[in-house]
Amino acid sequence: MKLSEFSLNDIVEPDVKWQEKAQAYLDSLAMPPGALGMLGHTAVKLATIQKTLKPQIKGKSLVMACADHGVVAEGVSNYPQITHAIVNTALTGGAAINAFCNQAGVNLTVLNVGVKGDVKPPEPMNAMVHYISKPVAPGTANMLHQPAMTKEECTEAISIGIQLAQDLDANIFVLGEMGIGNTTSASCLLAKYCDLSAEQVTGPGTGVKGEALQHKKEVIRKILERCSTEQEPFEILLQVGGLEIAALVGVILGAASQQKAVVLDGFISGAAALAAKAIAPSSMSYLFAGHQSAEPAHKQMLESLGLETLVKLDLLLGEGTGAALATNFLEASCNFFNSMLTLDEALKLS
Amino acid sequence: MKLSEFSLNDIVEPDVKWQEKAQAYLDSLAMPPGALGMLGHTAVKLATIQKTLKPQIKGKSLVMACADHGVVAEGVSNYPQITHAIVNTALTGGAAINAFCNQAGVNLTVLNVGVKGDVKPPEPMNAMVHYISKPVAPGTANMLHQPAMTKEECTEAISIGIQLAQDLDANIFVLGEMGIGNTTSASCLLAKYCDLSAEQVTGPGTGVKGEALQHKKEVIRKILERCSTEQEPFEILLQVGGLEIAALVGVILGAASQQKAVVLDGFISGAAALAAKAIAPSSMSYLFAGHQSAEPAHKQMLESLGLETLVKLDLLLGEGTGAALATNFLEASCNFFNSMLTLDEALKLS
Repeated sequence: MKLSEFSLNDIVEPDVKWQEKAQAYLDSLAMPPGALGMLGHTAVKLATIQKTLKPQIKGKSLVMACADHGVVAEGVSNYPQITHAIVNTALTGGAAINAFCNQAGVNLTVLNVGVKGDVKPPEPMNAMVHYISKPVAPGTANMLHQPAMTKEECTEAISIGIQLAQDLDANIFVLGEMGIGNTTSASCLLAKYCDLSAEQVTGPGTGVKGEALQHKKEVIRKILERCSTEQEPFEILLQVGGLEIAALVGVILGAASQQKAVVLDGFISGAAALAAKAIAPSSMSYLFAGHQSAEPAHKQMLESLGLETLVKLDLLLGEGTGAALATNFLEASCNFFNSMLTLDEALKLS
Repeated sequence: MKLSEFSLNDIVEPDVKWQEKAQAYLDSLAMPPGALGMLGHTAVKLATIQKTLKPQIKGKSLVMACADHGVVAEGVSNYPQITHAIVNTALTGGAAINAFCNQAGVNLTVLNVGVKGDVKPPEPMNAMVHYISKPVAPGTANMLHQPAMTKEECTEAISIGIQLAQDLDANIFVLGEMGIGNTTSASCLLAKYCDLSAEQVTGPGTGVKGEALQHKKEVIRKILERCSTEQEPFEILLQVGGLEIAALVGVILGAASQQKAVVLDGFISGAAALAAKAIAPSSMSYLFAGHQSAEPAHKQMLESLGLETLVKLDLLLGEGTGAALATNFLEASCNFFNSMLTLDEALKLS
């Protein structure tokens, strides 16, 4: 689908009446008030999104969007541009995300929107992984000196994400990503959308510390200086975003337009959510914070998004790992709305 | 099995060599160092317990031990003695624990070691629940005035737990409980085993607040005063424990003697773990903290046990709910040790 054919007006807030009904139902169940904690909130949110007191999970689809980042030329990552190697690992079934999708019954789609060099699906490719190759460009430009994407590239990447959310057979979308250098991009997006400084948004990513961390912070400071006048949401995304991040923005918009739930992973998918929020605020009602990563600024990011986090395991891995694990909790939420007795029903058993 | 036939010498520390091997294997996997956070620690612990780099989950069994508490006569709970109604709810499949066991593929055994009044397995009983009725006594005595259990009762409840851990076909044991009034018992156990005051150990349980909370604290203070000279681990358990807590101590000891993993739930099962630690310190090596509940002193309890927590969802429900959810994470840990490529293998794919 072309972005021009997509209407942001299709993204509407869920009906608040269902929220009230779902909350009243939760409060009637056979347990002390509030005893289900965050799972209670999760169940109410799912019920509201699905307009039912018996929410169902009909397919969980994880989109792991992958692309490279020109800014790695500035030495912001501990790693060389091995994005393609990690993508190939996921395609064989040998990455962390495969193990976690397998555990949680999540279908994994690896989406290449701009990995530098050839991704060659290895033989044998893992039968449980779906691979979609739609490279928009061989990575982004070096955003220290110029916009990361052209307007056309950014638009195309978003469109690919929207289309994918429409094509995949799922009612729970799970966001993942892979792209060496992309915490730098996510930090810049956080700074721009939330008016924060390089100091506040920079963290170790895959393990950058000491002088290298100071250098990363300095690169981010200079990028933010270069873009200091940008204010328009889409313009910010193309200036300091990434192709995989733009694709995830598309998945959020596409899922929200179909009134389907989206589970965020860590710092990178959170940056995509900030962009989606700026572009279409109503899309926030469909988001769940799957995971709080060890990246320091992620906590601030989740607060800005107004989301409480389901999984806190100090994962620092991306790929969608935390979000995939969090879908277990969405499933548990559905289960108790579908099977628990109310207190009145339970007391009749005594 | 009679407790006299069980030897605490059967509980041994896992071989530290396997811990070193497992840690080295974790460090070799295709990801940044430490990126798997707590799941990395979980995988290493499971591999150490099972003496393999490819740990497996061969059955997860949740023991929900249920019993009543004489101390509810002192008004320490918001609820009347409806333990049997909640037990009946679980037996129909309509409790929270059923929903969560169903989600996580955990087999549920409801163990009645002292529910007051008759538990009548309702018709139809849920086919996915196993019910074992071995009531030791119709609840504990009122521990404000006398020991909660006799020596014989406490011994019998522990023995039932040990036997169950030997009978159930599982290599992951999950602890749950139900017993109106049992946070009072758990608070007293925490105070005695960790030398804390009533002030430090008392919390709202199922929602006690204001004056009622002050009253609960005062009752706990008086109980601790009555038992101020008790020091011996088993003696503390019978003075201020519960029949279901003693049974869970047995499950821990029985599982540890077979070198199998045990997942704790909240404040009550944590109190059982403190007793097990005092009785057989080596049993600690087999424990995982499934869940950190909203009960304030639970954090302190987990610190005393030296365990880091997998699930933090502010559940306040007991039954084993948090622990059942946590088994998803143990499963994910096993999965990545079984399927992830090492960094060397992954780089060959590039």
